[in-house]
Amino acid sequence: MKALLIIADGLAGRPRDVNGKTCLEAAWTPNLDELTSRGMTGLVDPIGPGIRPGSDTAHLSLLGYDPYTVYTGRGVFEALGTGMAVQPGDVCFRANFATVTPGKDGFIVKDRRAGRIASGQAQLAKALNEIHLGEKLGIEFEFRPSTQHRGALLLRGEGLSRYVTENDPHKVDATALDFQPVEGHNDESSRRTAAALSELVRYSYEVLYDHPVNRQRTLNGDHPANYILARGAADLPRLDSIEAIYGVCGAVIAGGALYRGIALACGMKRIDAPGATGGLDTNLASKAKTALETLRRLDYVFLHVKGTDNAAHDHDAKAKTAFIERIDAELIGPLMEDIDWERTHLAFTGDHTTPIDCGDHTAEPVPVLFVGPNVRQDSTITFGEREACRGGLCRFSGRVLPMLFNYNNWNPKFGS
Amino acid sequence: MKALLIIADGLAGRPRDVNGKTCLEAAWTPNLDELTSRGMTGLVDPIGPGIRPGSDTAHLSLLGYDPYTVYTGRGVFEALGTGMAVQPGDVCFRANFATVTPGKDGFIVKDRRAGRIASGQAQLAKALNEIHLGEKLGIEFEFRPSTQHRGALLLRGEGLSRYVTENDPHKVDATALDFQPVEGHNDESSRRTAAALSELVRYSYEVLYDHPVNRQRTLNGDHPANYILARGAADLPRLDSIEAIYGVCGAVIAGGALYRGIALACGMKRIDAPGATGGLDTNLASKAKTALETLRRLDYVFLHVKGTDNAAHDHDAKAKTAFIERIDAELIGPLMEDIDWERTHLAFTGDHTTPIDCGDHTAEPVPVLFVGPNVRQDSTITFGEREACRGGLCRFSGRVLPMLFNYNNWNPKFGS
Repeated sequence: MKALLIIADGLAGRPRDVNGKTCLEAAWTPNLDELTSRGMTGLVDPIGPGIRPGSDTAHLSLLGYDPYTVYTGRGVFEALGTGMAVQPGDVCFRANFATVTPGKDGFIVKDRRAGRIASGQAQLAKALNEIHLGEKLGIEFEFRPSTQHRGALLLRGEGLSRYVTENDPHKVDATALDFQPVEGHNDESSRRTAAALSELVRYSYEVLYDHPVNRQRTLNGDHPANYILARGAADLPRLDSIEAIYGVCGAVIAGGALYRGIALACGMKRIDAPGATGGLDTNLASKAKTALETLRRLDYVFLHVKGTDNAAHDHDAKAKTAFIERIDAELIGPLMEDIDWERTHLAFTGDHTTPIDCGDHTAEPVPVLFVGPNVRQDSTITFGEREACRGGLCRFSGRVLPMLFNYNNWNPKFGS
Repeated sequence: MKALLIIADGLAGRPRDVNGKTCLEAAWTPNLDELTSRGMTGLVDPIGPGIRPGSDTAHLSLLGYDPYTVYTGRGVFEALGTGMAVQPGDVCFRANFATVTPGKDGFIVKDRRAGRIASGQAQLAKALNEIHLGEKLGIEFEFRPSTQHRGALLLRGEGLSRYVTENDPHKVDATALDFQPVEGHNDESSRRTAAALSELVRYSYEVLYDHPVNRQRTLNGDHPANYILARGAADLPRLDSIEAIYGVCGAVIAGGALYRGIALACGMKRIDAPGATGGLDTNLASKAKTALETLRRLDYVFLHVKGTDNAAHDHDAKAKTAFIERIDAELIGPLMEDIDWERTHLAFTGDHTTPIDCGDHTAEPVPVLFVGPNVRQDSTITFGEREACRGGLCRFSGRVLPMLFNYNNWNPKFGS
């Protein structure tokens, strides 16, 4: 048996998104509707009713883990997602290039995303990674870029702590913050980790501000990438791998580093689909093709698409609706055609609601669809928020992957 | 007020069981349908969505306990179910007669069930119970047979541990395993318990292989019951009794030792219905009659039927469907007739899904029905997996007994 889990980020919406409909309800999705009429739908609270999920915690929960128990922070998933081999004890950060100018009380943040820098990141990272932190700290580090200004930072050494604050002021023309031990964690490890970070970002300006890449950017009128903002401190979460729990091997196909990182933390392999960007411009047909190829070799695939959420964060109902229609046509269509439906179960859902008006995650439940030979059918015939209220799965919280795997008889028994 | 909880083991199924229907959907169940139209249905995840339940953990959960907190293993319920008076500190096992031959590296298991031995078990058990374990171990034990090859083993003594492995290799022509401390529990108690068990099963062959019952079995061409396989080590779980929680007294009527044992652990009395076997040949009319009699004396009855699960484990859709029809006609019919419906609430459900194809427990939710004077009615009119999706109870996890008792206003208030 095979299993395919597809999560469209921020899929669900609110009735004011498109004249009384959500984007998902407004979109023309004949393939999802066909799967709905063959399978069973319902509503899933990614974490629980009324709990507004982050992308990381929502994914952990949907994959069957209790985020209240295992979640240590976002940074470690970003680091794993960029390809770094995180070890227990390492402390990782979601980090990005920014543009600053020296000010009276520190560095003033002029652009939190360094003009969404699109080239030269590797050279800048190389320069950064040549910094040596004070010998006495005994801490090594690595910055690795992912897409645009984004990347991850990993600290390695004895006695590091994830209980440190961030330096991102989250607004422009504000002074970059000092790293500090998190309140209630004023111990030696946290103070040492904060000190190392402070030293590192101070050096980052020295190394970056006059770097040839930035000299050229300034000449071009682009914001120089002359500083590092780091947040989301986290160490490796203690997770039983999916293989250890269910005895099956699978892979993640995702353009976004975060989603790859979460899946890697759960023990999935990483498969890169050509043209998968983690954005609205991603190549969905390539992801479908890669998923089908991977399913021939492995037991299951977790396929993530991000564009739905990007459009919603940009308050762009048209783009979100259009992207959902592309998912239906370019991803679901080819999959429907080529999946071996006698031997495969598929689940399709989102990781949270992102209404157009709000432009950020909200807590409403998300429609979810299961289809395959062992799924009890219900009477729903279109895939959308309000139709899913009538679905045979009713409403439940998280655990979509275990429910999918259950149809393949993969789940361990609790008890006897 | 009175309450009656009926659990049909492994009741639910999958659409492939009977040409697109589950056995429950395919079965003709006019009485359950009549109760459905009078009451309210829904779906219950025995433990939680996507969690594949054992019979023991599912029952604990349906009876209102959190199996993640209270469950210690299956053996103690088997021991209680056979009538042994388990005390705190005792370690109990699900144990059974098997057929072995001496081999180079130990005993080779030829039949894990000793030809499903149907007579002579009491004599064999008597012989076993005359074994004296080495004085230095200071451990007493008792083996007590239940049905066919099945039984339970109880160890009693200072400093015993439930963290010991089993000796059942779970396949024929394999060598019986050594008892060992469970990984991570290599303490003195666990080593001592494992050593006592090893000595006990070694002696069991000496005592049994030439026993008159086995000499006769061999002459008849039956497999001799010459060895003991033990698994599911458990000590007494710490449970508040149902009487302590709700202030009411009730009884269990169940052919299977496990189910009696769970109910006894929760403080129910045991009532034996004549002809109740825990199998497909059970006398359902007798169970109905016994339940009605018991309800005259006590506050509530928990009635368990096992045949549904037995048929499903044997991949026999016809037998499962026919047994469901028997439940409807021979159990539900007479109960409907004679229950005092002005003063009684009834719940009917299963403890898990057992699809015909899979032949083992799976995680899908199970339909559940409540009926009685305080139950809000819904629009469902037949009792089955897909109809229950529309039920007014929606979907919930475990706790069917507390929900049933609530209609009788028996539940303690949490808070003030």
